Amino acid sequence: MLVSCCYEIPIFLSKKKNFKTYIARFNSELFTLTYGALVTQLCKDYENDEEVNKQLDKMGYNIGVRLIEDFLARSSVGRCHDFRETADVIAKVAFKMYLGVTPSVTNWSPAGDEFSLILESNPLVDFVELPDNHSNLVYSSLLCGVLRGALEMVQMAVDVRFAQDTLRGDSVTEIRMKFIKRIEENLPAGDE
Amino acid sequence: MLVSCCYEIPIFLSKKKNFKTYIARFNSELFTLTYGALVTQLCKDYENDEEVNKQLDKMGYNIGVRLIEDFLARSSVGRCHDFRETADVIAKVAFKMYLGVTPSVTNWSPAGDEFSLILESNPLVDFVELPDNHSNLVYSSLLCGVLRGALEMVQMAVDVRFAQDTLRGDSVTEIRMKFIKRIEENLPAGDE
Repeated sequence: MLVSCCYEIPIFLSKKKNFKTYIARFNSELFTLTYGALVTQLCKDYENDEEVNKQLDKMGYNIGVRLIEDFLARSSVGRCHDFRETADVIAKVAFKMYLGVTPSVTNWSPAGDEFSLILESNPLVDFVELPDNHSNLVYSSLLCGVLRGALEMVQMAVDVRFAQDTLRGDSVTEIRMKFIKRIEENLPAGDE
Repeated sequence: MLVSCCYEIPIFLSKKKNFKTYIARFNSELFTLTYGALVTQLCKDYENDEEVNKQLDKMGYNIGVRLIEDFLARSSVGRCHDFRETADVIAKVAFKMYLGVTPSVTNWSPAGDEFSLILESNPLVDFVELPDNHSNLVYSSLLCGVLRGALEMVQMAVDVRFAQDTLRGDSVTEIRMKFIKRIEENLPAGDE
């Protein structure tokens, strides 16, 4: 089982993480473990990691197209004027609101159409270690789909992928986002 | 798709729920939608609702046996002296912490070995309507498993089931819990 390793890890997060993070993520563990159950189930259902990644991204997309309404209603955030403003809202409002962490926005492309979200810690991967036979699994792929789906609903087509992942031995988690195009307002978007 | 109905429901929860609930559940929507994705996936995987309920309960059990450590570490709750105290801790501390709601504890059996948790609202079912062909689905079964697994780790064997469910037309959600026996400390518990 994917997350079975956590049996051996004493869960005293307060000792490993700073107090502010600890408070912000006070009630995220049920979500984290439920997400683990979802990934585990998909690993049983699909033959290879690439297919699991694709399914997680697709599920995330369907979640994103719904979550955006909730986000706009609760955050009181208005229309962003450019991609830099969008990046800041994603990092400082959306991630904070739904995952209790605030990634830094960095590595802008010269043209200003690409940036990275750097997460010092990723709540989704608490207690998780990838087994050797899942070396191609992008465990948190759901997040890429959520971002893609949510932005599509505010007329922004983006490409989202993991560039670094602590689960795969990198020192941070890096989500790379690339602006593709503005979508015409009249085109309906829906389930993929 | 199970939760597709929510496309038609405007998500302005703040107008429907009281402000306190609104704040407590500020960031639960991502969890709610991810749980919906998990249930939807299981409905694709298994032939009938009864099997899906069983799988959700089993996943919940595996989550519960992990979550209890997190709960004990963060809540500073000590050993409960009787089942009534356990009921209060579940309702007022655990549900509050992980789901942002506080069920009422009621309908005690004369022998004091059974009670109900009444949830005025269940965060897991926000946006959800059961399609007609899933009339036997106990959508939130995961919660039964979580409670069963967590309590087993503190040497309490309990039976947990949904007695009422707003998703099935009842006016409240009622989780019925029955004390079965105290488990000997030396027996190891683990994955089901």
